[in-house]
Amino acid sequence: MRLLFLGDIVGRSGREAVVSLLPRLRQEMALDFVVINGENAAGGFGITAAICDELYDAGADAITLGNHAWDQREALAHVEREDRLIRPRNFPPGTPGRGNGLYEAKNGARVLVINAMGRVFMDAMDDPFASVDEALSDCPLGDVADAALVDFHGEATSEKMAMGHFCDGRASLVVGTHSHIPTADAQILPGGTAYQTDAGMCGDYDSVIGMEKDEPLNRFITKMPRGRFTPALGPATVCGVFVETGAGGLAERVEPLRLGGRLKPARPA
Amino acid sequence: MRLLFLGDIVGRSGREAVVSLLPRLRQEMALDFVVINGENAAGGFGITAAICDELYDAGADAITLGNHAWDQREALAHVEREDRLIRPRNFPPGTPGRGNGLYEAKNGARVLVINAMGRVFMDAMDDPFASVDEALSDCPLGDVADAALVDFHGEATSEKMAMGHFCDGRASLVVGTHSHIPTADAQILPGGTAYQTDAGMCGDYDSVIGMEKDEPLNRFITKMPRGRFTPALGPATVCGVFVETGAGGLAERVEPLRLGGRLKPARPA
Amino acid sequence: MRLLFLGDIVGRSGREAVVSLLPRLRQEMALDFVVINGENAAGGFGITAAICDELYDAGADAITLGNHAWDQREALAHVEREDRLIRPRNFPPGTPGRGNGLYEAKNGARVLVINAMGRVFMDAMDDPFASVDEALSDCPLGDVADAALVDFHGEATSEKMAMGHFCDGRASLVVGTHSHIPTADAQILPGGTAYQTDAGMCGDYDSVIGMEKDEPLNRFITKMPRGRFTPALGPATVCGVFVETGAGGLAERVEPLRLGGRLKPARPA
Amino acid sequence: MRLLFLGDIVGRSGREAVVSLLPRLRQEMALDFVVINGENAAGGFGITAAICDELYDAGADAITLGNHAWDQREALAHVEREDRLIRPRNFPPGTPGRGNGLYEAKNGARVLVINAMGRVFMDAMDDPFASVDEALSDCPLGDVADAALVDFHGEATSEKMAMGHFCDGRASLVVGTHSHIPTADAQILPGGTAYQTDAGMCGDYDSVIGMEKDEPLNRFITKMPRGRFTPALGPATVCGVFVETGAGGLAERVEPLRLGGRLKPARPA
Ligand SMILES: [Fe+2]
Ligand SMILES: [Fe+2]
Ligand SMILES: [Fe+2]
Ligand SMILES: [Fe+2]
Ligand SMILES: [Fe+2]
Ligand SMILES: [Fe+2]
Ligand SMILES: [Fe+2]
Ligand SMILES: [Fe+2]
Repeated sequence: MRLLFLGDIVGRSGREAVVSLLPRLRQEMALDFVVINGENAAGGFGITAAICDELYDAGADAITLGNHAWDQREALAHVEREDRLIRPRNFPPGTPGRGNGLYEAKNGARVLVINAMGRVFMDAMDDPFASVDEALSDCPLGDVADAALVDFHGEATSEKMAMGHFCDGRASLVVGTHSHIPTADAQILPGGTAYQTDAGMCGDYDSVIGMEKDEPLNRFITKMPRGRFTPALGPATVCGVFVETGAGGLAERVEPLRLGGRLKPARPA
Repeated sequence: MRLLFLGDIVGRSGREAVVSLLPRLRQEMALDFVVINGENAAGGFGITAAICDELYDAGADAITLGNHAWDQREALAHVEREDRLIRPRNFPPGTPGRGNGLYEAKNGARVLVINAMGRVFMDAMDDPFASVDEALSDCPLGDVADAALVDFHGEATSEKMAMGHFCDGRASLVVGTHSHIPTADAQILPGGTAYQTDAGMCGDYDSVIGMEKDEPLNRFITKMPRGRFTPALGPATVCGVFVETGAGGLAERVEPLRLGGRLKPARPA
Repeated sequence: MRLLFLGDIVGRSGREAVVSLLPRLRQEMALDFVVINGENAAGGFGITAAICDELYDAGADAITLGNHAWDQREALAHVEREDRLIRPRNFPPGTPGRGNGLYEAKNGARVLVINAMGRVFMDAMDDPFASVDEALSDCPLGDVADAALVDFHGEATSEKMAMGHFCDGRASLVVGTHSHIPTADAQILPGGTAYQTDAGMCGDYDSVIGMEKDEPLNRFITKMPRGRFTPALGPATVCGVFVETGAGGLAERVEPLRLGGRLKPARPA
Repeated sequence: MRLLFLGDIVGRSGREAVVSLLPRLRQEMALDFVVINGENAAGGFGITAAICDELYDAGADAITLGNHAWDQREALAHVEREDRLIRPRNFPPGTPGRGNGLYEAKNGARVLVINAMGRVFMDAMDDPFASVDEALSDCPLGDVADAALVDFHGEATSEKMAMGHFCDGRASLVVGTHSHIPTADAQILPGGTAYQTDAGMCGDYDSVIGMEKDEPLNRFITKMPRGRFTPALGPATVCGVFVETGAGGLAERVEPLRLGGRLKPARPA
């Protein structure tokens, strides 16, 4: 199977780049399944039902979230109705929506998608390791699921690498999100799970993690707010990770994808 | 000028890889100046005088540090004697050693090297923006310095990007360290400064940020210590950033470098 | 019932003050049950079996812990054997020991003791609210338990007050520990639960939270370690909270206790 | 001299209690100088010019702030005009307003007031120890100043105690703010400086640190926002610290003050 994961879409610039590129990518790369992190798609803060639809239309099979999941109030209702929209699994029991889903890809294969949030330098959620373990155990790779993808939304590289090893042999891909910067450490771990510490954002990299740079700079320098944070509007780089799975759903190949904007392009052959 | 920066050396594996590769790299890449972050060179924690010498012999012109600067007690004395060893500049006034240095490269050019530490999700140091500003102003690029390199040792990608823009037009390169994972966002910012959020470590990437993975995993899962953290001993990937400067010391080209070990190789032509 | 809770014992000074005062206090105050937080009893870091015995002999009925629970390795084994030693309940499942206990007081009454740890500005444990809720529900006050005491070991005053209200009407006392400073906010919440944000430590208050002040001061000022943290050895103030329960196990009276050392004495009549 | 410091006023309830009590207190307690922390006076977030005037009218001689200093935009302009309004001194150079002031008390004595902010578990400001040191050195107690009061706005009890010892012998009073809970550790340190870790808020203690408790509880339990934080409106307890200075401006007596609302009253004779 050929899977593509795209990192946090930041604002209009990121959305437009994904919507314009993804249809062609799906075809040219012969993608079977596409997952996108959409936690910053709506003006940098959260996501709306309309944006979800736009992304499904462009070729997304599932959308994951993160700490910005609830920035747009309508997401709370939408996440209940729309089973392709996944919020971090380690919110407390009773949280609206779901933290994982088993989907049928266009080729008929079953793809497990899990979203979880890190706790180092972030808000204290339920244990992400226990939570991901449960989801993977409920739906074993190579048995119930033909592919399994974990979007681990976290800050600390240590926690993200630990999650990669924790899932090694049980997931097709563990990919980090939230830092908004793609890492150059794509690898297949010893047990067969593809791993990249962060997918990077789909957004304008002439910015501070996707936001227009004046206000973040102002705050770092003066320690006082002057205005709001708004997404940078220059051309976005679409950032993600491509994985090809083999027998048993483990990874045979992992490649970064970076297209458009300011970053050096990387496109899996 | 042709400059190479290598990220945090982690333990023996990282040291051996750097020492065996660097002499050849210096020659083949026609490097004029090499800076290495050595904060984890001694068993993962700090640096010793002997390791510094080993790195100078291998081709390092200056060594930078970070939050692990003082893990080995002898570093406090050594940083006073050895002017090629630089600790973060934004330690309080009175801290032993120096936070920047102006060095003469083999080709006679003057290279300013600055080390500073971020404060987001890290210990509260003096203001890194004010500190770097002072060092850059004291020694203007294109005037006093022919090249200027800032090693910004930080956790948060936002603070690191902000530092990049803050120095844009006044430094040849702003490169992050500390996360131990190379980022894939090398770019030349609008003002001419090369930037990469993190250089990545020189260490074994089958690990948790360079440390043998069992104990970090144990702590994330059980929240209890079982043993010590020790560097992973598998083959290291040497990670860094190559910059070529032009007129006025600004960047004309920036390329990631990754050699050996598990990560996909990247070698500037 | 008449209950006394004493806050974190810090090192020898705190231990000696508690051991010398408690037997008399038990008698003079006609105490039915005494709980002590012992997480810093062994040289400031953790607790040993011998220290537990010393505290039981002096009149402790149960001992609670906190983030320093495992600083002494023997605690891991001791917490398995000794059912009067309680570690925070919201460690992950499988952690040695127990996070609550139902004890028989000398007067035959059953006392539920719960220990949990906060997550704001602390390590990310399992959800303390869900965890305490479970323990209180398993053992309802006024039904299974004649009194219920929650030691909530946390940093943020907001999280501690929230825990007080969360338990209000279901516990006799919610008392905070960990800050090592007694608060002056003892009150009975609207639902009948006694509450104090922090019990304060049993230790020397001419110190930095119980530790000899030179090294903490040095680190705040220079950002470099010079030596180790060791408990201050001046006379300790024994700090705690006294609660008298009425019908149904709710609080009828709550009073701070402070005896000896430098702080203004407070002794319930 | 007889000085009173009152902790963070939270919203209308806190304001009304202070405004109604302070005129009488000034007289009955024969106060020479009154300082109030007003960072939460305007609906819990910041302060306005009108509220400042209300507090001066009620008997405040100076008003200090904290991390909420700029929540009301008008404070930025007001702090420039009004020299009795003091913001934390360790904001970066160039910040509007002042971080200390030397005032003439009604009795003609000169009172130095310093405001600084802690950095542990808070935003990274400039070094508070260096900053307070500078202010105290510029205006030595017993020489230029007849009394000196430091409002150290911080989260961690360790940093606050360290600041107390750091100033010991050079200030009349070091008092903490920001935790919104009064501590019961008022003492005169060995060098003659009065110290209390936190003054406590002037606000409703049937709350979560002064805010209506439903929303904070909701967020701790569900990890999702449901509404806004608003100040609790029940009767406030006015909380503060009273100091009497002697020769050379050092403390001869320190007493907590707690009046009204739910907390046990404490009123210096
Ligand atoms: Fe994001
Ligand atoms: Fe995020
Ligand atoms: Fe490092
Ligand atoms: Fe580091
Ligand atoms: Fe403690
Ligand atoms: Fe603790
Ligand atoms: Fe406040
Ligand atoms: Fe505050």
